[in-house]
Amino acid sequence: MGAAQSFRDMCDRTKNTNVRLSLPAVCMVWQTAMIILFGIFIRYDKESDTHWVEHKKTENKSSDIENDFYFRYPSFQDVHVMIFVGFGFLMTFLKRYSFGGVGFNFLIAAFGLQWALLMQGWFHLTDGKIKIGIESLINADFCVAGCLIAYGALLGKVSPVQLLVLTLFGITLFAVEEFIIVKVIHARDAGGSMVIHTFGAYYGLSISWMLYRPNLDQSSRLQGSVYHSDVFAMIGTLFLWMFWPSFNSAISDHGDGQHRAAINTYLALASTVLTTVAMSSLFQKHGKLDMVHIQNSTLAGGVAVGTAAEFMLMPYGALIVGFCCGIISTLGYKYISPFMEKYMKIQDTCGIHNLHAMPGVIGGIVGAITAAAATESVYGHEGLIKTFDFEEEFANMVPTKQGGHQAGGLCVALIFGIGGGLIVGAILRLPIWGDPADDNCFDDETYWELPEDEESIPPILQYNNHMRNKDIAETNFTMEPDHRTRS
Amino acid sequence: MGAAQSFRDMCDRTKNTNVRLSLPAVCMVWQTAMIILFGIFIRYDKESDTHWVEHKKTENKSSDIENDFYFRYPSFQDVHVMIFVGFGFLMTFLKRYSFGGVGFNFLIAAFGLQWALLMQGWFHLTDGKIKIGIESLINADFCVAGCLIAYGALLGKVSPVQLLVLTLFGITLFAVEEFIIVKVIHARDAGGSMVIHTFGAYYGLSISWMLYRPNLDQSSRLQGSVYHSDVFAMIGTLFLWMFWPSFNSAISDHGDGQHRAAINTYLALASTVLTTVAMSSLFQKHGKLDMVHIQNSTLAGGVAVGTAAEFMLMPYGALIVGFCCGIISTLGYKYISPFMEKYMKIQDTCGIHNLHAMPGVIGGIVGAITAAAATESVYGHEGLIKTFDFEEEFANMVPTKQGGHQAGGLCVALIFGIGGGLIVGAILRLPIWGDPADDNCFDDETYWELPEDEESIPPILQYNNHMRNKDIAETNFTMEPDHRTRS
Amino acid sequence: MGAAQSFRDMCDRTKNTNVRLSLPAVCMVWQTAMIILFGIFIRYDKESDTHWVEHKKTENKSSDIENDFYFRYPSFQDVHVMIFVGFGFLMTFLKRYSFGGVGFNFLIAAFGLQWALLMQGWFHLTDGKIKIGIESLINADFCVAGCLIAYGALLGKVSPVQLLVLTLFGITLFAVEEFIIVKVIHARDAGGSMVIHTFGAYYGLSISWMLYRPNLDQSSRLQGSVYHSDVFAMIGTLFLWMFWPSFNSAISDHGDGQHRAAINTYLALASTVLTTVAMSSLFQKHGKLDMVHIQNSTLAGGVAVGTAAEFMLMPYGALIVGFCCGIISTLGYKYISPFMEKYMKIQDTCGIHNLHAMPGVIGGIVGAITAAAATESVYGHEGLIKTFDFEEEFANMVPTKQGGHQAGGLCVALIFGIGGGLIVGAILRLPIWGDPADDNCFDDETYWELPEDEESIPPILQYNNHMRNKDIAETNFTMEPDHRTRS
Repeated sequence: MGAAQSFRDMCDRTKNTNVRLSLPAVCMVWQTAMIILFGIFIRYDKESDTHWVEHKKTENKSSDIENDFYFRYPSFQDVHVMIFVGFGFLMTFLKRYSFGGVGFNFLIAAFGLQWALLMQGWFHLTDGKIKIGIESLINADFCVAGCLIAYGALLGKVSPVQLLVLTLFGITLFAVEEFIIVKVIHARDAGGSMVIHTFGAYYGLSISWMLYRPNLDQSSRLQGSVYHSDVFAMIGTLFLWMFWPSFNSAISDHGDGQHRAAINTYLALASTVLTTVAMSSLFQKHGKLDMVHIQNSTLAGGVAVGTAAEFMLMPYGALIVGFCCGIISTLGYKYISPFMEKYMKIQDTCGIHNLHAMPGVIGGIVGAITAAAATESVYGHEGLIKTFDFEEEFANMVPTKQGGHQAGGLCVALIFGIGGGLIVGAILRLPIWGDPADDNCFDDETYWELPEDEESIPPILQYNNHMRNKDIAETNFTMEPDHRTRS
Repeated sequence: MGAAQSFRDMCDRTKNTNVRLSLPAVCMVWQTAMIILFGIFIRYDKESDTHWVEHKKTENKSSDIENDFYFRYPSFQDVHVMIFVGFGFLMTFLKRYSFGGVGFNFLIAAFGLQWALLMQGWFHLTDGKIKIGIESLINADFCVAGCLIAYGALLGKVSPVQLLVLTLFGITLFAVEEFIIVKVIHARDAGGSMVIHTFGAYYGLSISWMLYRPNLDQSSRLQGSVYHSDVFAMIGTLFLWMFWPSFNSAISDHGDGQHRAAINTYLALASTVLTTVAMSSLFQKHGKLDMVHIQNSTLAGGVAVGTAAEFMLMPYGALIVGFCCGIISTLGYKYISPFMEKYMKIQDTCGIHNLHAMPGVIGGIVGAITAAAATESVYGHEGLIKTFDFEEEFANMVPTKQGGHQAGGLCVALIFGIGGGLIVGAILRLPIWGDPADDNCFDDETYWELPEDEESIPPILQYNNHMRNKDIAETNFTMEPDHRTRS
Repeated sequence: MGAAQSFRDMCDRTKNTNVRLSLPAVCMVWQTAMIILFGIFIRYDKESDTHWVEHKKTENKSSDIENDFYFRYPSFQDVHVMIFVGFGFLMTFLKRYSFGGVGFNFLIAAFGLQWALLMQGWFHLTDGKIKIGIESLINADFCVAGCLIAYGALLGKVSPVQLLVLTLFGITLFAVEEFIIVKVIHARDAGGSMVIHTFGAYYGLSISWMLYRPNLDQSSRLQGSVYHSDVFAMIGTLFLWMFWPSFNSAISDHGDGQHRAAINTYLALASTVLTTVAMSSLFQKHGKLDMVHIQNSTLAGGVAVGTAAEFMLMPYGALIVGFCCGIISTLGYKYISPFMEKYMKIQDTCGIHNLHAMPGVIGGIVGAITAAAATESVYGHEGLIKTFDFEEEFANMVPTKQGGHQAGGLCVALIFGIGGGLIVGAILRLPIWGDPADDNCFDDETYWELPEDEESIPPILQYNNHMRNKDIAETNFTMEPDHRTRS
């Protein structure tokens, strides 16, 4: 730890949060690179190209409605809302970091989805080109979700430049990890319990461990919500909760696959809400509910049902998964998060360990068990093949073996998350990224022009000043916020 | 009234709002019961089961796109948004009950939809099992809507345990009532003007009458909005307004049925906005608009067009329905609600009488008239049969008779709403549910851990304290909110 | 300028903002007119009429899923959200004009869509009737968008009656302009860069020029945001941003047309976010981001890709369009808007010149170039015909000539926007519309009953009062907000 400590000291020496050169430079250079790479590699696929009209005849499709667009576009839009409004508004809960929560989420998602189209595409080249359609857009959004989860652990403690770097590496790791899990190991993961949530959460937690701030309590005045910021965060919670059935069904099989994934997710999430409320009330003084739990733990069921959503999990199975995750996640917020901060040096602003990491691992395990237990009597002969994709090189696969592959996939997700996070965390410790000092975290003032606002004066101080000063006029004069107008 | 009064006295004796045992107990036990009942009864239907691949061939469906999922999933998601964001945010308008508005809405909807799947399913068993698909999920959400409407009348005056009890009985009554109206009486009610809105509203109003609080004015300081809570409520209003065409078309016939229901609802709602604005301005001093009207009455047209949405109401017919409902609903807020509170002892926090009860009854009547007036020349021979489902045992039905059945359906909805509400209201008067005292209503403090917040000090009190106390320092010191931090 | 000045003096003489007669009168009379005109002209089309069941057979459609409803309804709902929540909440950013922003947006959209169904329908009569289906609803929403864009320039400075007049004329002009551009000139404009954005923006800017207020700085205390109003505005921004792919693809060709338009828009918007952030940081002191840019300029790519979205723009082409527009739009907010206000007497509250006017014109030019450059080798023979609709009277059209027609379409949009705006602006200068005085703009107090609210006292004034008065108690007493309760 001595070497690590001196590395830390070196890194913490200077804190200059001015990103006026680095942020525009990164944005412009990377966006330019995207344009060049898109020019070289990315083309429309058969269903989004003007040759569709001929392709349709070749494939004997009788109607335009059989274009994949109509199978997946409604789900895509729901996923899109989850990424930008869901994740974005979930992170507005801090009293003075709502701009950074929703704004930086917007920035890194917009960059990430472009880079994801390239990274994911390079693993599936056709004639040396990446052919994109609606399913590619969904996968790009999924890929971005992993990085947004990681952002949750770091909310308020990093600069936008760090977030862009986190996203660049996160997307890259994601694409490799996904290829290994889905193509090489042949694990199924429709809703990404392993690929998205387990990976993303451990990636973020490892980075947070690397960026540990021993004096973060100097910012504790801002590390909380106000009444209306909690209501804003509920917008995020609800859009995530409502559209999670679309998330888990967006890229599953046409027909019954999408249908079943949506039903299972709907049920798991409903169950989670009740156990979250129960635990929140039971472990709180006077039985009062805590908004943190309602905002976050109610979503754990959707994470945990991700892998198994397209399987014959059965409706009661989905309820059981949700039941357990509501309990575990809420107790995580109550007991595990403070423990991790105190003893493990992991500061997890949004509690992603409770919302994504634990439920993600549970989801991987549930998926493995459900897959291993699959039988032809339940699935039907054709149904089994279609659901688990026992075709081509995997035509001889059997459910028990598939269960093992699912477990293998979970391990890969963990390894990539933790390993990748440690490496990227080390990079982000370099004193060049413009991150805030320990007493300056969770504050939009650092990276945003803020409007004049009475709330910018902490109310207690304000009234105390009224009290303690005879010379009210003068005191008030110094308190007067400056007039920045928006024109 | 003497007996009623002494019953009331008995019930009001003690007010202990600590729900630390009752709320977790109800949530855990009921959720466990759901899991057991789902395990016994609920299975996937033919379109969401892995046997779909075989079933598709049997039914001669050429493409996966003919799975019911693709007909109804977009509408389902819109309805889902209405239930959780629409109803939830519409109830955030109170200055200090936004958590309870959106949070308890979330809780009871999540429980209600599970119970609804069971209750509605038991009326349509297949081989002793309930087979669920996307249409079941929509119907469950519809069922929940009835209870959320009832919650609107009680907002801020009941405990979460009472709400769960209200929902348990509400869903049960709903399922029976719906079976009688739709299956036995064979009334059509695509958008649920009768089944959902009339039932739900009278259910809530009857409960509110049973729970009458003579001293509710002791909480009047909190029974109002602040600027930003009104903006939050507009989120609810707009998502309800925009997605109402999906609500009314979600379970109507494939093809022209869904298409026409969406168009009629779109038009009725547009018309309502203009007459609402007109009435709000005309009956207000200085012609200023009242946000209460804009938030609520603009939705009345969607309620009132629910039954007739799938009929050949004609575009101008939809406009007329919306026109009338905007006027009636706004005048209801202005004159009828105060009258009901003063003379009929019905305290209706959200004004559901104006938004759901009256428009729901109008919708039932419009539906009866439109059905009775249906002719083969307008509908076409096949169209008439398909629209009104004149098949099997009802093959000999004629439009005029159908109109009578529609009217019968409306009566059943009223009877179940009022009768059920009185019984459930009596149960909810028992002094065991943890509801707040009369001077403690509309306050999130009762059931929620609140963030430190300048707004938690009611502004009027604050300034009065400055004024009336010589010893300002001390007074203010006691007013200082305690620092609860979110970690 | 002398005559214009005296005309202005005449118009500005009296400012009576009481709209108690005019607003209800306009709403009731116009809504009644709508009902009569709908009764005479509007009927269901073949796909929403009960005769669909027969029509389906005639057209040899094998399934109800081929009803146009299922091709377009999800996109329609997304567009609907953009119109009401997107535009509505984008305009809530002002500290005390959130009610007017979202509320008047609601009012004029609800009126506008009815009038648009009529106006657009009259150009496409079938048997003397207007037959409406889902595509008509989308077109009506599009038509409304033009007027909402114009509202953006005038936000806070006009009365609801003026807005209704603006909408009546705006829709009328739009329908004529659209008919000329799309039918007569045969320009393609799927996402309406020219038809909607260019027209709407110049219409609004011209009106704003006509309604120039030399003393608007008297309202400068209210012409800015507060922290939470900026977060509300982000709701609008994000829903516009996320659903823009639906906007640009909603009425493009079934199959690959819709598919490709969605992809292009998705990419253009992603690119815009990065260059907006870059410019916002680069041109700001200390490199801090400005919320105004994030809220608005991030959307410019969606505007600019509107015309070419359905063409073979190629993914990198979409990125380039977004790249440029993010830069231009942000610099527009920084430099052009202040210039226009100071030297050109155009006061543009929301900066529609930067968000709609410039990107709209760019979109028109991009569309013309892309069309002119289209070749059969890229599009395929059938694809070229289908994409550009080279059929019937335009069967002999070639891409280069189509490029010229596109440029012609842009000119028509500019002429209608500017010309129409000048005429309507002159009408709106008449001193009969109830618009606010120069020192009373951007204030909801004028047209809304406001809730009691500590924020209703502008904070600066409040502290100044503390300062300047010895007699604090008395001062505070006068400041006490009156108790208006919501019942």
